[in-house]
Amino acid sequence: MKKFAVVLAGCGVYDGAEIHEATLSMYAIKKQGAEYTLFAPDADQHHVINHLTGEQMNEKRNVLVESARIARGKISPLSEFQPQDFDAILFPGGFGVAKNLCTFAFEGPDCKVNPEVEKAITGMHKASKPIGALCISPVLLAKILGNVELTIGKDKDTAGAIEKMGGVHKNTDHGQVVIDVKHNLFTTPCYMLDASIVDIADGAENIVRAILKRLA
Amino acid sequence: MKKFAVVLAGCGVYDGAEIHEATLSMYAIKKQGAEYTLFAPDADQHHVINHLTGEQMNEKRNVLVESARIARGKISPLSEFQPQDFDAILFPGGFGVAKNLCTFAFEGPDCKVNPEVEKAITGMHKASKPIGALCISPVLLAKILGNVELTIGKDKDTAGAIEKMGGVHKNTDHGQVVIDVKHNLFTTPCYMLDASIVDIADGAENIVRAILKRLA
Repeated sequence: MKKFAVVLAGCGVYDGAEIHEATLSMYAIKKQGAEYTLFAPDADQHHVINHLTGEQMNEKRNVLVESARIARGKISPLSEFQPQDFDAILFPGGFGVAKNLCTFAFEGPDCKVNPEVEKAITGMHKASKPIGALCISPVLLAKILGNVELTIGKDKDTAGAIEKMGGVHKNTDHGQVVIDVKHNLFTTPCYMLDASIVDIADGAENIVRAILKRLA
Repeated sequence: MKKFAVVLAGCGVYDGAEIHEATLSMYAIKKQGAEYTLFAPDADQHHVINHLTGEQMNEKRNVLVESARIARGKISPLSEFQPQDFDAILFPGGFGVAKNLCTFAFEGPDCKVNPEVEKAITGMHKASKPIGALCISPVLLAKILGNVELTIGKDKDTAGAIEKMGGVHKNTDHGQVVIDVKHNLFTTPCYMLDASIVDIADGAENIVRAILKRLA
């Protein structure tokens, strides 16, 4: 049975992991006969957003503790992730990726990446194992790996930022997956497009299928 | 296009709505050609649980504000729900149902139900419109409607409590739906059984299909 590590960035689209992308990725993995283990950095969230109003709340929350809501408690600190234990790694999206896993939401192409996230990506890349990224998560791959082929849908500003970091951006529509064969990278736009929850399920299913095909 | 109201109880299995059940219910509705509108009571959560440790946190959170994380912001206060606007209503599970929508987690068969929840269920029942309930949510129907046929899987204590409230409990396995034809009630066990995320998707898909068949 193929083993996926899935990295979460909190719980909620505006300050954490996008919940539909995370849940439907887990579903796609299990449905296609593979298994998943969840990870998140044990670190403070950048901030907490009231998802009803969009305003910042005067609260502190922890990325691992909030991610545990999506995980039903079964989640480990990202510091414990070891590339040799897994066949592939997958990053669902959400603003938490651009706020907690790196600083892309605030610094664009000049962003810094959380060292544990960077270590996980670099480790899987060196081991020539597949890395999947949904929604905004491909910016992590552009920042760390540079000259790689990716998609975040068709948002010009974000695509431009990816190219500034040395990446090659391909425009995509709902459910499409861009595969960088050389670097073993798989990306799909999900909620970076104006999407319905069915589009998200399609994107998650297609990226997991593409990764499993590569692993077969 | 058939319209479902989906009522959330927060965001996270131990103090709110079960995230997989909520997400996969929304997916099942949209995938089968219907549409959904999300609601939650604008009220304080009973408490906040750290989902990593299971311990209570010294925090206050609001059911509607936290439910908005699952809803990506598109959610209304349950006080605004009107039976005439919808063809069916659906309650995903999670401890939040038994802690925030009613007090079943603390008082069992003697529980009280949030008045807005009671009004929504009574209103749909009087209008002879389908009511769906996943996981622990059927306790709401037993408490409010009394002599109805339901399932929460096969947990003896909870089944016993349902019978004390006047309900008739039917044991079920993964993905099975109990239909009370007379009262137009649809229930399925989901995480009340030791289930995988694929079982949850099956349960959500089956209950939505059964409701749509009734509405056809």
